[in-house]
Amino acid sequence: MKKKLNIGLVGYGFMGRTHSNAFLQTNRFFDTPYDPVLKAVCARNAERVRSFAANWGYESTETDWRALVERTDIDLVDIASPNDTHAEIAVAAARAGKMVMCEKPLGRTATESEAMVTAVERARVPNMVWYNYRRVPAVMLLKQLIDEGRLGTIFHYRAKFLQDWTISRDLPQGGEGLWRLDVAVAGSGVTGDLLAHCIDTALWLNGSISEVTAMTKTFVKERKHNLTGRVEPVGIDDASAFLCRFENGSLATFEATRYARGHKALYTLEINGEHGSAMWDLHDLHRIQWFDHRDEGRLRGWRSIHVTDGDQPYMKHWWVPGLQIGYEHTFIHQFADFLQALAADRSAAPTFRDALATDDVTDSVLRSAKTGRWEKVPSRVQVA
Amino acid sequence: MKKKLNIGLVGYGFMGRTHSNAFLQTNRFFDTPYDPVLKAVCARNAERVRSFAANWGYESTETDWRALVERTDIDLVDIASPNDTHAEIAVAAARAGKMVMCEKPLGRTATESEAMVTAVERARVPNMVWYNYRRVPAVMLLKQLIDEGRLGTIFHYRAKFLQDWTISRDLPQGGEGLWRLDVAVAGSGVTGDLLAHCIDTALWLNGSISEVTAMTKTFVKERKHNLTGRVEPVGIDDASAFLCRFENGSLATFEATRYARGHKALYTLEINGEHGSAMWDLHDLHRIQWFDHRDEGRLRGWRSIHVTDGDQPYMKHWWVPGLQIGYEHTFIHQFADFLQALAADRSAAPTFRDALATDDVTDSVLRSAKTGRWEKVPSRVQVA
Amino acid sequence: MKKKLNIGLVGYGFMGRTHSNAFLQTNRFFDTPYDPVLKAVCARNAERVRSFAANWGYESTETDWRALVERTDIDLVDIASPNDTHAEIAVAAARAGKMVMCEKPLGRTATESEAMVTAVERARVPNMVWYNYRRVPAVMLLKQLIDEGRLGTIFHYRAKFLQDWTISRDLPQGGEGLWRLDVAVAGSGVTGDLLAHCIDTALWLNGSISEVTAMTKTFVKERKHNLTGRVEPVGIDDASAFLCRFENGSLATFEATRYARGHKALYTLEINGEHGSAMWDLHDLHRIQWFDHRDEGRLRGWRSIHVTDGDQPYMKHWWVPGLQIGYEHTFIHQFADFLQALAADRSAAPTFRDALATDDVTDSVLRSAKTGRWEKVPSRVQVA
Amino acid sequence: MKKKLNIGLVGYGFMGRTHSNAFLQTNRFFDTPYDPVLKAVCARNAERVRSFAANWGYESTETDWRALVERTDIDLVDIASPNDTHAEIAVAAARAGKMVMCEKPLGRTATESEAMVTAVERARVPNMVWYNYRRVPAVMLLKQLIDEGRLGTIFHYRAKFLQDWTISRDLPQGGEGLWRLDVAVAGSGVTGDLLAHCIDTALWLNGSISEVTAMTKTFVKERKHNLTGRVEPVGIDDASAFLCRFENGSLATFEATRYARGHKALYTLEINGEHGSAMWDLHDLHRIQWFDHRDEGRLRGWRSIHVTDGDQPYMKHWWVPGLQIGYEHTFIHQFADFLQALAADRSAAPTFRDALATDDVTDSVLRSAKTGRWEKVPSRVQVA
Repeated sequence: MKKKLNIGLVGYGFMGRTHSNAFLQTNRFFDTPYDPVLKAVCARNAERVRSFAANWGYESTETDWRALVERTDIDLVDIASPNDTHAEIAVAAARAGKMVMCEKPLGRTATESEAMVTAVERARVPNMVWYNYRRVPAVMLLKQLIDEGRLGTIFHYRAKFLQDWTISRDLPQGGEGLWRLDVAVAGSGVTGDLLAHCIDTALWLNGSISEVTAMTKTFVKERKHNLTGRVEPVGIDDASAFLCRFENGSLATFEATRYARGHKALYTLEINGEHGSAMWDLHDLHRIQWFDHRDEGRLRGWRSIHVTDGDQPYMKHWWVPGLQIGYEHTFIHQFADFLQALAADRSAAPTFRDALATDDVTDSVLRSAKTGRWEKVPSRVQVA
Repeated sequence: MKKKLNIGLVGYGFMGRTHSNAFLQTNRFFDTPYDPVLKAVCARNAERVRSFAANWGYESTETDWRALVERTDIDLVDIASPNDTHAEIAVAAARAGKMVMCEKPLGRTATESEAMVTAVERARVPNMVWYNYRRVPAVMLLKQLIDEGRLGTIFHYRAKFLQDWTISRDLPQGGEGLWRLDVAVAGSGVTGDLLAHCIDTALWLNGSISEVTAMTKTFVKERKHNLTGRVEPVGIDDASAFLCRFENGSLATFEATRYARGHKALYTLEINGEHGSAMWDLHDLHRIQWFDHRDEGRLRGWRSIHVTDGDQPYMKHWWVPGLQIGYEHTFIHQFADFLQALAADRSAAPTFRDALATDDVTDSVLRSAKTGRWEKVPSRVQVA
Repeated sequence: MKKKLNIGLVGYGFMGRTHSNAFLQTNRFFDTPYDPVLKAVCARNAERVRSFAANWGYESTETDWRALVERTDIDLVDIASPNDTHAEIAVAAARAGKMVMCEKPLGRTATESEAMVTAVERARVPNMVWYNYRRVPAVMLLKQLIDEGRLGTIFHYRAKFLQDWTISRDLPQGGEGLWRLDVAVAGSGVTGDLLAHCIDTALWLNGSISEVTAMTKTFVKERKHNLTGRVEPVGIDDASAFLCRFENGSLATFEATRYARGHKALYTLEINGEHGSAMWDLHDLHRIQWFDHRDEGRLRGWRSIHVTDGDQPYMKHWWVPGLQIGYEHTFIHQFADFLQALAADRSAAPTFRDALATDDVTDSVLRSAKTGRWEKVPSRVQVA
Repeated sequence: MKKKLNIGLVGYGFMGRTHSNAFLQTNRFFDTPYDPVLKAVCARNAERVRSFAANWGYESTETDWRALVERTDIDLVDIASPNDTHAEIAVAAARAGKMVMCEKPLGRTATESEAMVTAVERARVPNMVWYNYRRVPAVMLLKQLIDEGRLGTIFHYRAKFLQDWTISRDLPQGGEGLWRLDVAVAGSGVTGDLLAHCIDTALWLNGSISEVTAMTKTFVKERKHNLTGRVEPVGIDDASAFLCRFENGSLATFEATRYARGHKALYTLEINGEHGSAMWDLHDLHRIQWFDHRDEGRLRGWRSIHVTDGDQPYMKHWWVPGLQIGYEHTFIHQFADFLQALAADRSAAPTFRDALATDDVTDSVLRSAKTGRWEKVPSRVQVA
């Protein structure tokens, strides 16, 4: 008999949908010990939150997250609302003894994130941040290869996240769907939005980053603000790039932008080691490119591996070889892993603390972009 | 208020899963006027059918399809069991006044299929066959281009469906998961299984086929039979290829095999017209390759179109540009289309009659492979 | 000290240029025992042949091939003129005791080719046909893999040669540059021009073909003739496709057309064996795609091998790894191989006799396209 | 009647071969007003230089470049010897009134390069540096697109040159073939060797660079030196990366390394503008990827343009559409352009002065890697 897990979701946007889908789909494909119950969804617009609840099967709605957090019939608070709400909700939820899941980035700054880490660790509640790309089967396969030592000493890492959706000067900032352009809400631009994904994966695959040197740019300096109706300065970074050194001695380049015409959501990563190299690309997320120097010389080449076989990560739960899954499945995998960890009384990675490490890097990047200097990434001692 | 649609599913294999997922997911992403109710699932093994029902949320189970067909609380019978059961169940369900959906191919032979068409048309019940690849967004985009005349006169069509999963001589035939190798159950080998997909799409995109010349081969002549425990002759075709002429004057080549090492489920198609050409590949199903001769000369090239934008077929229902969907979504799209058609008192394509046209081609292919001659594909007069 | 080899070239078109380039470049990159001397070039237009001679460094010119063939200062006659001249020139050259090299196809028909084979074999003169694609390093690497048994039993072969340059109805037939559309000169359309390349490679890689069933089509039935100035029927096949069985038990599909919009010269081939598969594509001729089933399961994939390393065929003679060569180099490789064979008193493959085997297949293809039946490919007994 | 141009080549290594081939091939394919005469080749090893001369058809040999420079029968001195010889030879040749062509990079440092610029400008002799990648047809097509304003405002530029040939610790430094690892000879590691190519193309396509921040690394700190026989410190940079700002406001990332396993010579570049983007890759040098935002929305995609048509740069001189050329042809194109410019009494780009601009960037990169700060790239006033 599965154990009920009562979920209260905050936010009904893009991420509210991906999370809700994960809650509903996980047990159809994965055998977990929990039965997720969509207890309540919370958002400010009462009419629209009711419509969302009806569509996804939430039992009730709230319009004030404080009420949600206080409800005794909620086990887990899942935060899928804009970045400026993450810290306050997470801290309150932890204090109320709820498990907490939070969309990325954790906070708008490492300072906010630190408070969130402190709250969940003090409350000893399971917690997780939705850096979903770790759960792409192809990326997980790459993680396996690295952990098995198949690449040998790592020399290089490079990651990019390229989009092109904000090039038009007519695009306003702020409000629903466009809060990512409003620095007060988002905290930063592509650094916290896109680079944060690249950094989370990189820290997981390649270890800690020691120091960075960065540049950022805001191409469009003013945009109409949807909430005020006035043309206002744009406070976010439209593009952000940095060089860095990892603690394992490897060098890396990172770049994110929303001004790379022709790229919708091109998150690519590559890692080069002594014996092998691997690449991945979100636009064809079910493939990795793998080069093994130990293959016979005249037959060496990059293998395009179609990650859809039962012996590849997560794929035995889905269809048959050759039939791909998509973007939404990464959230299903992450929630399945969360439930499995919960059964073992653990948090699933990335925890709030893991995500704080990413924020430490993004903070360093933004700092370096201002100082024009190499900036050390702070190293934190894990609370015992 | 949505109208209840009570579904009775027969079969709990691979296709039972894809259909059930479609029933559950459609209304989360598409606004249809029906509320599908998973009323009952039927299969011979009582224990396993209960487990399947529990996983997917079916309200009840049956172990005899005749009982299911007779239930008055069922509106629609969906057939996802092996090919040898399609005709009998479909005819009975139609006679019982149920809507009928059937996995492809319709029957094991055009003769079986014809009886099925007659049954649903006499009973005037909505009916549909699950040739799901028509609902890949990229394939639907290609259909739009053809229908808009963007390719001009069509000269060539070519399609292949290549797999490699039966190369081992140690693989047995028959029984669950392997009935596709048992000619008594499957009706034929790759011709009815894989070529049928290629033909359905081709007839839809490029019109009727006039005549074919074909060859087939069974590479492994004997395999252990799972049901008898004895080594028995293999009756299916392992590979099948044909040349044909379409009624529009174009020439085509088709090929399917389960002996193409390195290909898991490589269904590719290409169409060449006077002004443009297009290609699609199931292994990266969210892309089409498009060549437009009317582009400026020195800049002509094949465009790799990542079909994930809101103005591309079906995609406004999913995520954001750049984020791909997968195989299972084709079933969701098809079921959404079925429900929309139902609201307009129509069947959604491909109907049983549409699918009969595919069986007429596969029958001609198998006949030509025996006679060594070009065989005309019969043309049928639509019942008024 | 290298031995002089006096060459007399017939024809100054596209192939006259590729051959002349090969004569001049071979010894810069390959160490052969011969010193090719560009003794004479022959073509009907006296002015243009002088200009060609000046450009390429031919010592003299002729306007009648009979005069060239009779010259005592010529060791080798190289035929690069249109197809209708091949047989007559080759037979005369052989009778005059010259070595003979001939552009492909050998004759317009197998009957013509047979006479040419008889002539060179009776005269015992070295002979070779310019099926240059055998000398693409990537194709030669594929040959090595097959000969080493790396693919195991072969199940499938498929080849296509797709072009789009004759789609316009305004294109005339006949005369310089367009003789390939004039059946009297060319012998056939794409069958002898493009399919012949596919067949030559296939026979070399996969052995003899037993029987074929084919279709051809002439899309544009009439074109203005450049020589008569009148609109005349088009006698060539614009498109040609066939199914066949190889003697090794494998099945194959072949197709060639000049009506595949978007493809300039897309010669692709693929071979599927029990243990591995390989693909090659003329548009990126320096790569092969290689799949090895014996790779570790979860890491199997198609390797894209960039054939530019010193341990790959021919490449140690060129630049450094990663730097590709092009189309013209295949002729250089073939001429280098011819010179090496000559030093050993042999002909280099493909000899006239090897090329006759290709003509036997193209004849069978054209015959089957007329009869609508499977046609056996004649097997010839090698003259002792 | 063509005018004789007497060439004296210094160096017989890899670049001595590519240049010699260009001298011999240019007039076969391009109609230039000059007749290049291979007058002399110079290198220290008398026996090997004679062998090189025999292979390529040089009329004479020298073992001291000073003798070559003084010869009155030489019009043009071409420097293809290691980097440490460039400045001295070029200055002497210019003073002797010779035209000078020089392999890249111009000098080991901007200081050396400046002296070379001064020498050729004072002597008013035609001069050119062999940054051959500008003459790849695909790259030239990209240049046309930019110059026509097809991309609009430029936002981003990124370039990488990745190799993997020095990963082994057993590889020695110094001496023939390995002088690129010897800092005294090469001046720097990948910065002057590989990044210099990326920078030259970038300055040409995207204008001047204002400032850079860089990092470099030497992975293998000691290697046996071939000339001393002792293990010695490695002075070159094995990897080098930088961020920069262009004067047109765009941001860029550059990276070069010889430690990127799996990449032989992967020079890739990408440029993103308001209306379009383009990519190029040396491993498939005959293609560009082109994205045009002004294409119809639902059909936008990256076009893979196979640059082999007569209306594309340089290609009317070669074969027919679809048939690719290779690496060596870039040198032929550059020499053809040099000869055409010469007829107009000009130097062909890139001149020594153009190449000095690249050295100013590489110097700034190496300086920033030491200081850890953003470094301004000096702007030089063109001598009137």
